[in-house]
Amino acid sequence: MKRIALLGSTGSIGTQTLDVIRLHPERFRITALAAGRNVDLVRKQIEEFSPEIVSVHTKEDARTLQAEYGGRIRIVWGHEGLIEIAGSSCDFLMNAVSGSMGLEPTLRAIENRVDIGIANKETLVTAGHLVMEKAKEHGVRLLPVDSEHSAIAQCLEGNSLKEVSRLILTASGGSFRDYSRSDLDGVSVEDALNHPNWSMGAKITIDSATMMNKGFEVIEAHWLFGIPYERIDVLLHKESIIHSLVEYQDTSVIAQLGLPDMRVPIQYAMTYPERLDYPAKESLNLWEIGALHFQPPDFERYRSLRLAYDAGRAGGSMGAVLNAANEQAVAMFLDGKCAFLEIETAVEEALSRHQRIEHPDLDTILRADRETREHVQTLIT
Amino acid sequence: MKRIALLGSTGSIGTQTLDVIRLHPERFRITALAAGRNVDLVRKQIEEFSPEIVSVHTKEDARTLQAEYGGRIRIVWGHEGLIEIAGSSCDFLMNAVSGSMGLEPTLRAIENRVDIGIANKETLVTAGHLVMEKAKEHGVRLLPVDSEHSAIAQCLEGNSLKEVSRLILTASGGSFRDYSRSDLDGVSVEDALNHPNWSMGAKITIDSATMMNKGFEVIEAHWLFGIPYERIDVLLHKESIIHSLVEYQDTSVIAQLGLPDMRVPIQYAMTYPERLDYPAKESLNLWEIGALHFQPPDFERYRSLRLAYDAGRAGGSMGAVLNAANEQAVAMFLDGKCAFLEIETAVEEALSRHQRIEHPDLDTILRADRETREHVQTLIT
Repeated sequence: MKRIALLGSTGSIGTQTLDVIRLHPERFRITALAAGRNVDLVRKQIEEFSPEIVSVHTKEDARTLQAEYGGRIRIVWGHEGLIEIAGSSCDFLMNAVSGSMGLEPTLRAIENRVDIGIANKETLVTAGHLVMEKAKEHGVRLLPVDSEHSAIAQCLEGNSLKEVSRLILTASGGSFRDYSRSDLDGVSVEDALNHPNWSMGAKITIDSATMMNKGFEVIEAHWLFGIPYERIDVLLHKESIIHSLVEYQDTSVIAQLGLPDMRVPIQYAMTYPERLDYPAKESLNLWEIGALHFQPPDFERYRSLRLAYDAGRAGGSMGAVLNAANEQAVAMFLDGKCAFLEIETAVEEALSRHQRIEHPDLDTILRADRETREHVQTLIT
Repeated sequence: MKRIALLGSTGSIGTQTLDVIRLHPERFRITALAAGRNVDLVRKQIEEFSPEIVSVHTKEDARTLQAEYGGRIRIVWGHEGLIEIAGSSCDFLMNAVSGSMGLEPTLRAIENRVDIGIANKETLVTAGHLVMEKAKEHGVRLLPVDSEHSAIAQCLEGNSLKEVSRLILTASGGSFRDYSRSDLDGVSVEDALNHPNWSMGAKITIDSATMMNKGFEVIEAHWLFGIPYERIDVLLHKESIIHSLVEYQDTSVIAQLGLPDMRVPIQYAMTYPERLDYPAKESLNLWEIGALHFQPPDFERYRSLRLAYDAGRAGGSMGAVLNAANEQAVAMFLDGKCAFLEIETAVEEALSRHQRIEHPDLDTILRADRETREHVQTLIT
C-alpha cells in the first residue's frame, strides 16, 4: 500500500490523481491532502479518503474544518500548512499545486526522502538548480507528471542518456493556434480558456495559449533530464497524440503516444516502474484518427516561447523572474486587468530589467520572485 | 572487437551490414562471409574485409576462388557451406539470407551460442517453435533486424512484456497500395518491384506487394516476443516513418520512428544494448514530413495477410507450408511463369491441401517445405 500525500487536491491534476487512486484502492491510500479555497470539495475528499492531515488556504477555513472533524484529523493552513503536508509521513508526494508556491513544499519533500510526482513545473522553472541538487543529494526520484515529460521519461527507459541527441516536445499550439499575431489583439479570457485538446486549470490553459507553458516545459526538461537547451526542440502537433519524442545518436526516434488524458501519466508516475491496467479508458486507434500533423514553431508568433528559451539559457535567477512575471501577468489577465498580449510584454520587460544573479540561493529566489510580481503590477496598472 | 559472420553478404541486408561495419571499423571485424552466385562482388568483399572463411553457392565458384586465394582463406560451398559459416568461430551471426534456407544455419549458430541478427524472417515463419526453444535452451539472443521488429524490441526496452496489451506493426502497403483488387490483374514484375519507400531484395519486395511480408512479420513477432496473434495488429501507414508500436495495459503507446534506412536497425542489432552514432545519415524532421497517415488493413484486398494470420494461428507445420508455397510461387512470378494474383491462390491451395502436423521436428518441416514446393510447381504449370 503506497501512502500518498497530495498537494493541490481540488485542482485539475489533484482530482485526477484521486481518480487514479479510486481505480486502484488496493495499491494507494491518501494520508494527506492540501487544498486551496474550495472547502466544499475538500470536505467530500475527507469523507471519501479519510486522510490523517489536511491543509487549506485560510485560517478561518482550517478552524471551521477542525471544529467539524475534531480530533479525527489534523487541519493546518496556508503556505506553512502546505509545507507541513509535504513533510508528512508518506511514500509518495504528488505536487499538483500551480505556481512557484510549489517550490518550498518540493524542497521539504526532498528532505523527507519521498519520491515526488512533479506536476508543478513552476518549481523547476524557478529553481531547477536547487531542486535537482537537493534531489540528488537525498537520493529522491522526481517523476514527471506533465504528459510531455512523462512521455520523454518513458522514451528514455531502457536507454542511456548519453546516447540522446535531441528531446522533442510536442505542442498543440493552444487555444489560439489558428490565429495570426494580429488576431491576438483583444482576445477575451473566455476565448483563451477554450483549449482544443486538454481540459486543464485556468493558469496552465492561458500559458498554453501564449505557449509560455511550452517554454516552461523546455526548462523543466532541461533540469529533469540534464539536456542542454540547444538539444531540446519544440514541434507543433495539433492532435496532441504524440506526447513527445526522444532522438538518439543512431537517428532512431522513440515516441510516446496516447489519447489526451492526464490520468495516464499521473498513474505512470505513481506506479513507476510498473504500468498498471487503466480500465477507465478507451485505447488509441490511429486509423480512426487518420492523420497526425506537424509544423515548426514560430518564435515570432509565440514570443513567450522565445523568452523562455532565452531565460533558460541565461540561467541563474532568470527562471525565477520569467515565472514570477508570467504568474503575475496571467493572474491579472484572468482578472480582466490586462490584455492577452500584455502578458508577454510584461514578462519581456521584467526579464530585461532584472540584474541576473549567477547561483541564487532560496532566499534570493524568493526575493526575485516577490520583487518581480510587484514590478509587473506597477507595469500594468 | 566483435567478430561477425555474415550470411547473405551480397544481398541488400548483407551489403548494408558491411556499410555499418565500414562506419565502425574499431568495433567490428568480418571473420566469415556466405554469398550466393555473385562471385565478382564476393571477390571485392574478400579484398576489403579479409575474412577467414567464405562460402559461395556452387562448387565451381568455390574451386575458382580457392585457387585464387590459396591457403589465405578457406572456401566452402552450397547449403553445407552456409551451415559451416554459421558454426564458425565468431561473436555475432548476421543471418541475411532470403527464404527457408536460413533455417538450418540459424539452428547451427544457436548451438554455436552466438547472438544472431535475424534478418531472415522465413526461419521463424517456417519453424518458430524449434528456433525459439533452441535459443532459450542455449541462452542465445535473437536480435531482430526487420525495421518493424527492431522497432518493437526498442519499444519494449525498459518495459515488461507482461504489461503489453498489443503489438502494432506498420505496413507501407507495398508497390500496389493504391490499386484496387481488380487493378492487380495482370500487373508486371517490373511494377511489383517498384516499392514506394524501401529499397530491398526482389523476394521481399514482391512479398510487400502481396503483403505476405507483413503476414510473415506478424508470425515473426509472435515468436520473437511471445504475444498471441489476437494481440498483434497491422496498421497501414504509407510514409513508413513510424516503424511499429507497442501498446501497454495503461493505454500508453510507445513507437519507434525514423527515415527508412535499414542500416539503422542493422546497427542496433549489432551494437545492442548500446546505440552508436550513425554519422552517415540525416535525421528525421517531422515538420518537414508534415503529416503521417494511417488506415486499417483490408483483409479482402490483401488476402495473403489473412492467409498468414490463419496459418500462424493454426500453428504446427502450417507456417512451413505457408512459407514454402509463397517462396515457390514468388520465384515463379519473378521468372514470368505465373501472374501476380496466382501467388496467393497457390498459397491458399497449398495450405488447404496440407494435413497439419502438431509438433513437427526439423525433418518433418524440411519434408513439408519440399513437398509444398513440388505441389506449387504442379499447380502453376
